[in-house]
Amino acid sequence: MKEKYLENIQRPSDLKLLSIGQLDKLCEEIRAKLINTVSNNGGHLSPNLGAVELTVALERSFCGKHDDIVWDVGHQCYTHKLLTGRQKDFDTIRTEGGISGFPKREESDYDAFNVGHSSTSISAAYGIARAKELKKQFGYTVAVIGDGALTGGLAFEGLNNAGRSKKNIIVVLNDNEMSISKNVGGIAKYLTNMRINSGYLRLKRYIEKVLMRVPLIGKPIRSALLKSKNSMRKRLYHDTIFDDLGFIYYGPVDGHDIQKMLNAFKAAKRTDTPVLVHVMTTKGKGYVHAENDPGSFHGISKFDIDTGEPLSSKVGYSAVFGEYMCELAQKDNKICAITAAMASGTGLKQFSELYKNRFFDVGIAEEHAVTFSAGLASKGILPVFSVYSSFLQRAYDQILHDAAAQKLHIVLAVDRAGIVGEDGETHQGVFDVAFLSTIPNVTIFAPSNFNELRIYLRKAIYDTENVAVVRYPRGGEDYIPDSYASSDDDYSVYNSGKIAIVTYGRLFSNACMAVDKLKEDGIDVAVIKLNKIKPIVSSAVEKCLEYENIFFYEEGMRTGGVGERLFMKLNHENYNGKFHLTAIDDKFVKQATVSSALKKLGLDTDSMINDIKRIIDL
Amino acid sequence: MKEKYLENIQRPSDLKLLSIGQLDKLCEEIRAKLINTVSNNGGHLSPNLGAVELTVALERSFCGKHDDIVWDVGHQCYTHKLLTGRQKDFDTIRTEGGISGFPKREESDYDAFNVGHSSTSISAAYGIARAKELKKQFGYTVAVIGDGALTGGLAFEGLNNAGRSKKNIIVVLNDNEMSISKNVGGIAKYLTNMRINSGYLRLKRYIEKVLMRVPLIGKPIRSALLKSKNSMRKRLYHDTIFDDLGFIYYGPVDGHDIQKMLNAFKAAKRTDTPVLVHVMTTKGKGYVHAENDPGSFHGISKFDIDTGEPLSSKVGYSAVFGEYMCELAQKDNKICAITAAMASGTGLKQFSELYKNRFFDVGIAEEHAVTFSAGLASKGILPVFSVYSSFLQRAYDQILHDAAAQKLHIVLAVDRAGIVGEDGETHQGVFDVAFLSTIPNVTIFAPSNFNELRIYLRKAIYDTENVAVVRYPRGGEDYIPDSYASSDDDYSVYNSGKIAIVTYGRLFSNACMAVDKLKEDGIDVAVIKLNKIKPIVSSAVEKCLEYENIFFYEEGMRTGGVGERLFMKLNHENYNGKFHLTAIDDKFVKQATVSSALKKLGLDTDSMINDIKRIIDL
Repeated sequence: MKEKYLENIQRPSDLKLLSIGQLDKLCEEIRAKLINTVSNNGGHLSPNLGAVELTVALERSFCGKHDDIVWDVGHQCYTHKLLTGRQKDFDTIRTEGGISGFPKREESDYDAFNVGHSSTSISAAYGIARAKELKKQFGYTVAVIGDGALTGGLAFEGLNNAGRSKKNIIVVLNDNEMSISKNVGGIAKYLTNMRINSGYLRLKRYIEKVLMRVPLIGKPIRSALLKSKNSMRKRLYHDTIFDDLGFIYYGPVDGHDIQKMLNAFKAAKRTDTPVLVHVMTTKGKGYVHAENDPGSFHGISKFDIDTGEPLSSKVGYSAVFGEYMCELAQKDNKICAITAAMASGTGLKQFSELYKNRFFDVGIAEEHAVTFSAGLASKGILPVFSVYSSFLQRAYDQILHDAAAQKLHIVLAVDRAGIVGEDGETHQGVFDVAFLSTIPNVTIFAPSNFNELRIYLRKAIYDTENVAVVRYPRGGEDYIPDSYASSDDDYSVYNSGKIAIVTYGRLFSNACMAVDKLKEDGIDVAVIKLNKIKPIVSSAVEKCLEYENIFFYEEGMRTGGVGERLFMKLNHENYNGKFHLTAIDDKFVKQATVSSALKKLGLDTDSMINDIKRIIDL
Repeated sequence: MKEKYLENIQRPSDLKLLSIGQLDKLCEEIRAKLINTVSNNGGHLSPNLGAVELTVALERSFCGKHDDIVWDVGHQCYTHKLLTGRQKDFDTIRTEGGISGFPKREESDYDAFNVGHSSTSISAAYGIARAKELKKQFGYTVAVIGDGALTGGLAFEGLNNAGRSKKNIIVVLNDNEMSISKNVGGIAKYLTNMRINSGYLRLKRYIEKVLMRVPLIGKPIRSALLKSKNSMRKRLYHDTIFDDLGFIYYGPVDGHDIQKMLNAFKAAKRTDTPVLVHVMTTKGKGYVHAENDPGSFHGISKFDIDTGEPLSSKVGYSAVFGEYMCELAQKDNKICAITAAMASGTGLKQFSELYKNRFFDVGIAEEHAVTFSAGLASKGILPVFSVYSSFLQRAYDQILHDAAAQKLHIVLAVDRAGIVGEDGETHQGVFDVAFLSTIPNVTIFAPSNFNELRIYLRKAIYDTENVAVVRYPRGGEDYIPDSYASSDDDYSVYNSGKIAIVTYGRLFSNACMAVDKLKEDGIDVAVIKLNKIKPIVSSAVEKCLEYENIFFYEEGMRTGGVGERLFMKLNHENYNGKFHLTAIDDKFVKQATVSSALKKLGLDTDSMINDIKRIIDL
């Protein structure tokens, strides 16, 4: 399809040259481009399809010099990128060296704030608004937040702070009744009521107006009004939870009707206080497969446009986890599963259906997930909170203060541990080992294949005290030598020699491949795989003492990682050999395929081989 | 005063034997004991004085076998401790080996959930309630939360989850219009309106009732009701923000009137859905000095009961920080100060008065504080967020994801860094170095005296990129040798020798004292003090290479700390000497005076001397 309108949009203000009818055609072009590109590159489809008209209306309304649009989570920013000068690079999205699938200030001045995690937009936008005020720059500041992101506590903290302000900050609530899974909680129920009763607000205002004219009861109200002045008047005109927090509420507005949104944004601009515009959209809009199953098309790999089927499918750790959880739960009714809006992603779909009363989707609320789990555990229940590594970062204090400090037994199933690939910096699971290791009463297991995932999950649930963590990577199993037998030991050994590679988790595959190849050259190298990475057991330390050279590879941060800790322990035992540590050295890891990222970090098989050959050549 | 009533209360159910009049007398006795004990031991006074009647009413209402009361923050639990068998140990509160100033499950079965940080109670209580349901144990679960704690996002996550439940969970909102400072934000304003218009809710219900009988407008409402069934009916009876989230709201109730609270709790017990009881109390109630200045009596050191004056007062780091911030802000109008409900504690009182439009008290919302700061920074403002170390734990992901990953320049002034003493496990500032060190683009400075606090604060604001941290301990300056001159160097050296003590922050004092004493015995030891602890500059590493023995002392976690990192760097430079690391080894540090805690950890002057002498004797 020739992109008649899209190619003429170089910047948001160009949108002003088009009529509403033309803008609708533009949206058609954008949708086709989104479906096409994501089918090739993978990425976030449903959120972007749902927000096409909304983005067009926003960019057209807020294209002033000092206007800023802050996207929450950022996975809905593709249309924004197309409208802000990044059309020609669009097919590089989510590839190494290409444009990001999330807003990036370094990519464009139109990207106001970087993001990837949920619920940050209102706080950031409020900061931006106050900064502009201090600098006396006139401009609007808009936070665009989904109803799912609204379940995160940070969003509430933002609303609570921005709402009391006298500044014009505009929050656009993109309500599609979904977070990633179907949305949950009191606020979701409340929004559903608002959608159903969209006529109600008008009715209520009408009633109140009429009420004033009725003699019988108009009088007590009027006298009450006189007594309590403004606060009473405000309370009478209280309509929504957002008014309660200090926002003027507009809505609900059809989020696929550009004219209606333009009108609403115009009204919002005229208001001097914080405003919330409630926009209703359909996730996956315009692509039948995504509309029918928006969850599966939330974030996806390459797929066939006609059938909507993924081009490759491979059993992953998440599926194995979910299946085994069902097996365990069948035998033990104390086992519960907790997810923060990630039932599908973490493999808990089946569990949620089979064990409804022991399954808790808490919304995008990782902090609550941990503290709630601690509450369950305090009464002897066995909670397993399954969560992506990078999102667990949000619950650092809850793990420390609510679970570990009072020695409560909760299990954290940490999915997407290690490099995750194309989502880039904000999604890499490379911090969990380091930050969890700072916390006392935490035990961490790192399986390297599906079987070990089962073994250590069971061990975490039944044979571990306090906080027990099992971490495993995104995707499927990698190479494991035939001769290797999984066990529930704290460490495993593969091959022998005077040199050892010491590692854990997924990198065991790379290490074994390196060892196999070195063997072909007549070089014998052992692999010590740590299965329990915190605490490091003394028998593993003693084993390491046997080797003259230790090459430690870590798919995580160097500072606070297992390598530093092991070396300190070796030193304590007067280790005399050489210790070489390769880990992520104080930097964020950019988007690329997993294998390319590992190569750049020196964590691939070839790097291991080269490291070892270099020492031997000396 | 003879405690006629109190001494007969061994357990909550004993309260049922007393009449309301007798309960009031009991409260008098409790108040006297609280004032007396806290004047001797220090502790939290205002929150406890405000909650005496509330606690008595709660314990009398919820003393069933499976009833649980979860206290938020926990600093108001003193009366609870007096009523649950801990009277005879009460004078040991907050002392080494004595009872804790916070709920502790290991201390009593009546303490349902450990706490010390804010906003956790609803999530924990909801977990407890669901666990009891799964175990088919009948019992009420009550979360007692202040209006201050309600500004924390986790509290909202808890409300959002518990509100959708069909379970009886009772949230008691202890509303004293304060967090620690005067409360802020939309929700605070809203609660104030509710207090002012307590008659309003009844009026509104009355109006709606009458309305139904009025012919003119009764009809459209009735037909609307028929159409939309329950949801519409609910909306019409919508009263409060808590109803919106799924709670039945009772209140406001006078929190110093036991009979009224007993009635409210009775009604709450009869309700099958989540309930919120709004109780109004006066912080500091019953002690004139605390009522007049509840903020200063929130958490206090020993004081004179008659005058309310503290028994010792010493200029502390917080005051120096606050004063210098004012000085900097006067010269540079880009400087802003942010606090999370700790204007007094962090020394920002004067700043808040002098630079009102550049001062932001965000409520107990550390996550928002960081993301908001990042928003300010994205527009070139210079935000300085002053926060206690242990509370900063809540913002780990915001520091990482919102500030560091996008290279925004924010300054974190980390107060109460290191051991804090009598508040115990939950308040020790011993994790910040470790968790902050895992994050790229973070620089950390550790001043050892007031002058250095000023030097490195200035450096953090003006000569550091991205996230700049300055950390300093609770209390005042310790011993610094006359010959020592502060500088803005990355490390400092005191004395010389073949042995070096390497350390940072407050421990520099202990190190210097150790060195001075060892000198008397003819032993020469150098001190290398790291001023910039992340990154560790290569010149500091090179300096360390000069010493045959290095004793590293760290008032923080060993794992992920500076010691491990420095040793790894020394290894990289082929260091041949011995490296001895003393730090906090994977455990929580219990309540004790700072000096006693340091001694137990081997971080006091004597331990340093002994460590060194032991090596020399070899």
